[in-house]
Formats: sequence, C-alpha cells, structure tokens
Amino acid sequence: MSVEAIRWKDGSLWLIDQRVLPHDEAWVQCTDAQSTAKAIADMVVRGAPAIGITAAYGLALEARAGGDLDLARDVLLASRPTAVNLRWALDELADCPPSDLLDAARQMHADDIAINQSMGAHGASLLPKGAKLYHHCNTGALATGGWGTALGIVRSAWLEDASLHVWVGETRPYLQGARLTAWELEQESIPCTLVADSVAASLMARGEVDAVLVGCDRVAANGDVANKIGTLMLAVLAKRYGVAFYVAMPSSTLDMRCPTGAEIPIEERDASEVQGHRGVTWAANVPVHNPAFDVTPAELITAWVTENGLWTPTESAA
Amino acid sequence: MSVEAIRWKDGSLWLIDQRVLPHDEAWVQCTDAQSTAKAIADMVVRGAPAIGITAAYGLALEARAGGDLDLARDVLLASRPTAVNLRWALDELADCPPSDLLDAARQMHADDIAINQSMGAHGASLLPKGAKLYHHCNTGALATGGWGTALGIVRSAWLEDASLHVWVGETRPYLQGARLTAWELEQESIPCTLVADSVAASLMARGEVDAVLVGCDRVAANGDVANKIGTLMLAVLAKRYGVAFYVAMPSSTLDMRCPTGAEIPIEERDASEVQGHRGVTWAANVPVHNPAFDVTPAELITAWVTENGLWTPTESAA
Repeated sequence: MSVEAIRWKDGSLWLIDQRVLPHDEAWVQCTDAQSTAKAIADMVVRGAPAIGITAAYGLALEARAGGDLDLARDVLLASRPTAVNLRWALDELADCPPSDLLDAARQMHADDIAINQSMGAHGASLLPKGAKLYHHCNTGALATGGWGTALGIVRSAWLEDASLHVWVGETRPYLQGARLTAWELEQESIPCTLVADSVAASLMARGEVDAVLVGCDRVAANGDVANKIGTLMLAVLAKRYGVAFYVAMPSSTLDMRCPTGAEIPIEERDASEVQGHRGVTWAANVPVHNPAFDVTPAELITAWVTENGLWTPTESAA
Repeated sequence: MSVEAIRWKDGSLWLIDQRVLPHDEAWVQCTDAQSTAKAIADMVVRGAPAIGITAAYGLALEARAGGDLDLARDVLLASRPTAVNLRWALDELADCPPSDLLDAARQMHADDIAINQSMGAHGASLLPKGAKLYHHCNTGALATGGWGTALGIVRSAWLEDASLHVWVGETRPYLQGARLTAWELEQESIPCTLVADSVAASLMARGEVDAVLVGCDRVAANGDVANKIGTLMLAVLAKRYGVAFYVAMPSSTLDMRCPTGAEIPIEERDASEVQGHRGVTWAANVPVHNPAFDVTPAELITAWVTENGLWTPTESAA
C-alpha cells in the first residue's frame, strides 16, 4: 500500500493532514481524546471508517494519560454528528479494559483493511472489463484504515484489469475528489480524469459511465444512504441514464436503530468552505447553505456492497 | 440599474473585468477587433448576449480604425465557439455601412435591455408568490446588455414580489454564480443563498425549489438547449422532483439552422479552471475534462421564455 494516513508511533497518534494535501505532506500529532476530537472536527482526518479508527486511538490515548474515559467518549462522539462509525467504534470498545484499549484500536485498524479488501473483491466482481467508473468524494486509503471502500473496489478491480478508467468528481465544497482521490489514484498510477461535479450528467448522457461508486457515512435499516453532498444528484442521474449505482458499505456503517434516511441528522458546515479555499475568498458576501451530506433513497441504489457480499435492506424501500 | 458591464466611452469599448469580480472592479479597454476578441476568449466578458453586443462594438472599433472588416468578423467569430449570439450579432451587422456600425452596435445594446425587460415580465408571470427559485451560472446584467435573461426574470419578479428567494448555484468550475450572480443580487438587495452545485438535489428533494431558471447559449430548432455545464443535471433533478424548469431565451439565441442539440459544438476549456482558482492550485496532477457547456433535451424543459412570450419548438422533441 502506497498511501497511509493513520500511524501509531512512539506513544502518539499521527494523522496525515488531509487539509493540505496534495501539495504538502504534513502530520498532526494527537496525544489525548481532546486533541483527537479536534483533529476529527477540523477535518485533519475525514471519511467514516478513518474517523472510527481515529476515535478508537483517541480513547486509547486518554486511557494511557489516565483521563476520564466517559468524558473522552462524549468529546469524541461530538466531533462529527453524522458519521455512525464514530459511535460504532466507541461502542465496540465500551467493555474493553483501559489497559487493552491500544491493542483493541490497533486490531480495529487491521480489521478495517481486511474488511475493505474483502469488500473490494466483492465489488470488483460486479464491474465489466474496461469499466468506465465515476467516483465521488474520497473513500480511499485516506478515508479508511488503508485500502478504501468505494475506492477500495477501484483498487481491487484495477489489480485485475488495468484497462479501467475512473472519472474523479471534484466534490465541492471541500474538494476531496480533486485533492485526495486524484492524489491517491496518481500515487497508484490508476488511470483517471478529474471533472467538476456537474459534468457527471453529460458523461452519463453520452454513455461514458458504466457504474457510479460511492461510500456512505450512515445507512438506515431501509437502505437509505447518507453520504457526501452530491451523492443524491449522482443517484438520480444514474437512474435516468441506466447506470449502475453501487454503495460500498462496511457493515459498521449500517445503523439498524435508524429506520429511514429521514432520521439521519445532516451536519451544516461553515460558510467559508463554499466562499473560497485555502485563504482565497472568491464569493460575494451573501448567506451560504453548506450541508455536508445528503440522503439517497434506497430505490435509487443498484447494490450495497459489504465485506460479506451484497446486502439487502431489511425493510422494503418506499 | 445598479450594474453595468459594457460601456462605450471616448472612442473605446470598456468592459468590466468579470474575472476579478466581486473583489476588484477593474475595467479592460478594447480598441480594435483583435483586443475585443481576446477579451471575449479570456472571459473578461461572458454570457451569450453580452458577447454578441461586445462583438458588435468590436466590429465598430475595427471600422473606425480602418481595418479589414472581413478578417475582423472571422477573428471575433472564433473567440468562443458555442455562443450563437456572436454569429447572430455579426450577421445583423453584415449589410451595415462601416460608418454606421457604431450606431448599430449602440442600438443592439439598447434593444437587448428592452428585450430582457420584456422577457422578465413574461417570465415573472409564471412564478408563484414567494417563489423559491434556483438560478445557475450568471445570466444577469453582467451577462447581457444590462438587465439579464434568467436573472432578468428574477429582477422583474422581485420588483413585484419582494418575498421571493433565490438559491444561487456557485457554478463550477468558473464560479459565475458565487462571484457574479451573488454579487449582482447583493447589489440589488434581492434575498439569496449561495450553495455548491451538488446541493440542488437535496433542496429539490425537500421541496425547497419551485422553479429552476437558466439562460442558454444556443437553442436548437427542436428545443434542445446548450447552456453552462451543470444545466442538464438541474433539468434531470427538476423532472424527478416535479420542479418547473424555465429557460430564458432571447430570440437571438435560437439557431434554426441547428436541428437538434447533438449538432451543437461543446467548447473544452483549460484544465487550470478546474485545478484551482485565482492562482491557488488545489488539485492533484491528473488529467482534466472541462466542458464549458452541456445539452439539455427539450423533453426536460417546462417552458422557453422569450421577449415575445413562450416559444414552442418547431419540431417535436424525442
């Protein structure tokens, strides 16, 4: 694996700073739950699985420092409201003795990579030879323990079929596609082309896309998917143009306590993300609406790909 | 009118530099056809009607300088390949004596404002009280002689109904919505909120949009519309969610020589527009596809609004 984003080293957690990629490779050190939660909230690290693993290490750090673990859990849980993996990771560690938390976090990290590789194999088997793929946001090594969910499927598929091609949606406002996915694919030499998000429609209309691959931040019991803003647009377009729409879904992202997508809270992020980027402001001074996610109804989804194969919603979609 | 973008002054054409708005108000001087064509190609001025008026002044400048008018026409025509107004404006002036070209350009400029105001009244009559509108790109005073096409409908509607609200799509990659439309609406104190293009889907899914308003760069005889990249996505979404989709279409934008949208050439622009903005590059170093326009099929369009009322395609849509 050429891309690594989460490292445990010399008693600290080190996170590659995804805010400054691809131009700078800087690392942020976390020493307790508070600094770990801040790194999550500030988007040093993003991507649902990576956030879960990071939170697990954050709890382990707090245990080593002898801090209050109940308080640490609350602080970590509050750092991003939509990602269910955060709660899942902390719940997994709820009964773990403090002295074993670091080993448990490391195991969770290793398991995530194995899960992603299994999901990658299942997903790759759905794709045609020479597949023309469209990918949204970043769901790769940077968003997970080190392989990727939707981009893990791309990695797995490409190892079998070097003739595939990936359209990389830039993913406004935070540009995870342009900055992170394009960088990961460049590192691996996987053929790709960057486009503005709104180009997807004409690509699909011209038959240039065989399948859309996206990750998910939370899946409701009925199969509705909360994922990065822009996912719903792609699903509606894919339905109209007869393009397959696959959601890469680690089981940890399924929230059976959540009956439908309508119950998923959608995080509103800061206006500055839309008004400019990296210190340059281009927008005129008007109000901004900046939802981080949208909800795609189950009826628009061709398949949910998990580490155990395809999943079927337990309640029929509307 | 509070916004003016094209001025004839002291024997020169002056264009407000739309590349640096909203933060700087700079003006570019054009003295002949060559410098006018360069200003069009460099997007100092953009928007189909504004390009047509600018080209007319460019021809008048060349006539005053005693230059070769046939060559001037070719140079101006080549500056942007998709906008039919460029050809329309130059064709309108084909039989004009060189000494009358400046008066003809000025008349074309004044006519455009009158046409836009008439289109604005027709379009406004289609909207409900307290309309929740979604607008793409910039089609306002900056894109025309001084009132606007789709944004002219917003201006006209707002004069009758101050309770309307406009969602401003930022319009990647060139950010005409964030930079220009938001600035125009701010100048006029028309209530608006800026969103990333991919937010349109969740707004429509939640019932937050009554009508989408867009302009057009060229309309084929069958009603297919070439317009800013991202228009097709909005039309597909509007169809799914039962939202009205209105195209503001000055008659000059109709190209009866073009039977369907399939015959409209789509300009590919520079990768740098997608890779960053105003000197900041954020994208990883991968290939880019940057089409300036897409084609929306007639079947997705609720109505074509012209200065003479609603237009009906002469050939039935597929």
